[in-house]
Amino acid sequence: MEIIKKSKKSQARIGKLITGHGFINTPFFMPIATKAAVKNISVCELDKLGAEIILANTYHLYLQPGEKLIKKAGGLHKFMNWSGPILTDSGGYQVFSLSKINKIKADGVEFQSHLDGSRHFLTPEKSIQIQQDLGSDIMMAFDVCPAGDAKQKIVAEACATTFDWAKRCYKTWKKSKKNQQLFGIIQGGIYKKLRDQSLKQITSLDFSGFALGGLAVGEDRKDMYKILQYIAPKLLENKPRYLMGLGRPEEIVFAIKQGIDMFDCVIPTREARHGRLYQFCSTKQKGAIKLFGNLAYRTSIIKNEKNKLDYSSINKNSEIKLLRQYSKSYLHHLFKTQEGLGLRLATLNNLEFYLTLMKQIQKAIKNGSL
Amino acid sequence: MEIIKKSKKSQARIGKLITGHGFINTPFFMPIATKAAVKNISVCELDKLGAEIILANTYHLYLQPGEKLIKKAGGLHKFMNWSGPILTDSGGYQVFSLSKINKIKADGVEFQSHLDGSRHFLTPEKSIQIQQDLGSDIMMAFDVCPAGDAKQKIVAEACATTFDWAKRCYKTWKKSKKNQQLFGIIQGGIYKKLRDQSLKQITSLDFSGFALGGLAVGEDRKDMYKILQYIAPKLLENKPRYLMGLGRPEEIVFAIKQGIDMFDCVIPTREARHGRLYQFCSTKQKGAIKLFGNLAYRTSIIKNEKNKLDYSSINKNSEIKLLRQYSKSYLHHLFKTQEGLGLRLATLNNLEFYLTLMKQIQKAIKNGSL
Repeated sequence: MEIIKKSKKSQARIGKLITGHGFINTPFFMPIATKAAVKNISVCELDKLGAEIILANTYHLYLQPGEKLIKKAGGLHKFMNWSGPILTDSGGYQVFSLSKINKIKADGVEFQSHLDGSRHFLTPEKSIQIQQDLGSDIMMAFDVCPAGDAKQKIVAEACATTFDWAKRCYKTWKKSKKNQQLFGIIQGGIYKKLRDQSLKQITSLDFSGFALGGLAVGEDRKDMYKILQYIAPKLLENKPRYLMGLGRPEEIVFAIKQGIDMFDCVIPTREARHGRLYQFCSTKQKGAIKLFGNLAYRTSIIKNEKNKLDYSSINKNSEIKLLRQYSKSYLHHLFKTQEGLGLRLATLNNLEFYLTLMKQIQKAIKNGSL
Repeated sequence: MEIIKKSKKSQARIGKLITGHGFINTPFFMPIATKAAVKNISVCELDKLGAEIILANTYHLYLQPGEKLIKKAGGLHKFMNWSGPILTDSGGYQVFSLSKINKIKADGVEFQSHLDGSRHFLTPEKSIQIQQDLGSDIMMAFDVCPAGDAKQKIVAEACATTFDWAKRCYKTWKKSKKNQQLFGIIQGGIYKKLRDQSLKQITSLDFSGFALGGLAVGEDRKDMYKILQYIAPKLLENKPRYLMGLGRPEEIVFAIKQGIDMFDCVIPTREARHGRLYQFCSTKQKGAIKLFGNLAYRTSIIKNEKNKLDYSSINKNSEIKLLRQYSKSYLHHLFKTQEGLGLRLATLNNLEFYLTLMKQIQKAIKNGSL
């Protein structure tokens, strides 16, 4: 990763991450394409939004339609018709959070599909093989991610297994000649000692980048901020730093100040489906959440009665024509009548918000104000 | 309506229908925007598809969001952001088919909303008022539409009420100075005598156009064809002729040969939601349904196993980029995983099919082959 500028006011930095499908400006946010589709929008729309990279889920694609089908299609890029970079997670997180039964063994995890109850066994080697078949630009090492409230002993065990599996992932990756990067994941929950130890272990392997896992998984935000502040600056400076699964806009701003470069989160797309819209606003507006400088945002529920007669644009400043043309009143109506177009408009709105936020952050770091 | 050419081989004709929002080439097909949205697609996409006019449902919009809200928005065109012509039905058909309880009185119909059970009373005057508030380009007279298997006595009563209400609609319309057209509806089921009588009654009023109602409502196709063949040529020649609710592609071709100019149907959009795709094919292909000349079509279910590994385009000849770029295999996956994007792609495919069919028909009439 090429670092272009480091902030003097914080650990924040801007840079360029080069992948097999073009480079990405950092810090960046990855829209989630769980099952090889960002819910309710097309790749043309992703392009228009200025998305530079997306994230797809190995667990879901392994189960449906299966990585072999995607490999036959020519890989995930061809299958889903997206020509930009793709990051795939390792499947680990979903195995623990979604599957009916899961059992960690030394070799890997046995689990039952949440779709049909079929039994599967995922190992570090298997996770890398799936990600290689998918052909993502950035693969993630297979790890164990304990819950946010897990006791220290559990987290310590997860760290040990994560290191063991990281070595196996690394070894499998090194044997391949494919143009894919592999990121290691640092666990350790909210325990400084465990984080230090995991960082030392994982960074002993020459991964393409390093991620912080096991954050934003249910722990207090205060605890998360504390451990992030502690561990993020210790990450290697010349490698991309990825905070998995974060987060709310103010959390992303906080993490960037600690030196994080990469983010992914379901919030913009998932909350869109519930009709919650993100929008920038004046810092003085009711409900405003400050980000930095004069930048603030608020969220609103489009189904609320007050939008019923609001004929103003969904977002008059949007780069997306549909968001300028359609009114809040109309979007309110679409949600009330459960028209699919409503989900699309809300998703476009929220992704545009997140991607614009990242551009604003990059600009602020560039001009020295963040 | 301006008739440009009459076929020498059939009653088919091409022409131009002028409305307050531009003219439309006839014969034409109207995509259905039941609740002020064509399900799963945007008005930009409707434009790209070449849709020249859409149909919205008075019953649905009256109940939700209410015609007053739409009037305040500046009318339906502004509310839903569609600048082309709009036809609204009268609400009559839905009152009978959707509402929980309905009771025909001399004055109108009492019914209970299918949404919340609230009681309403719809009269001819009220139907026109709602359509005036919606501001559609073409309004339909409020009629009584009996089921396809209704006995002659029931149909005769429906004809009598329809005529009575037609006069009241006509009177209400004539009082207004708005630039809206009003079409009369001829009922009579599959009974020639009743059709003749209804035609005589309804055409005694100087409506802007005339529709055949009470067809494609459950009767045998053979009966429908027979009565259509009988009554369509008797419709006034210099006025637009609209066959409500039809139909399958071959039915539309048949009706056009009888001199019909206008169609609407939920088939392309509804069947898209069930994953049934319409596509042109060679007349020799398995399952092909002939239309005219060398034109034939077939339908296929995208969820079928055979599409799983079919990496060819959804439609390589499509004018819509998404349909050329995304594969059948990917669309199969989207339907299997219930991704909203799948509904959009299938809808685009089917509407493009129907609208292309209409262009092919216009061309064939023009060059004398239909």
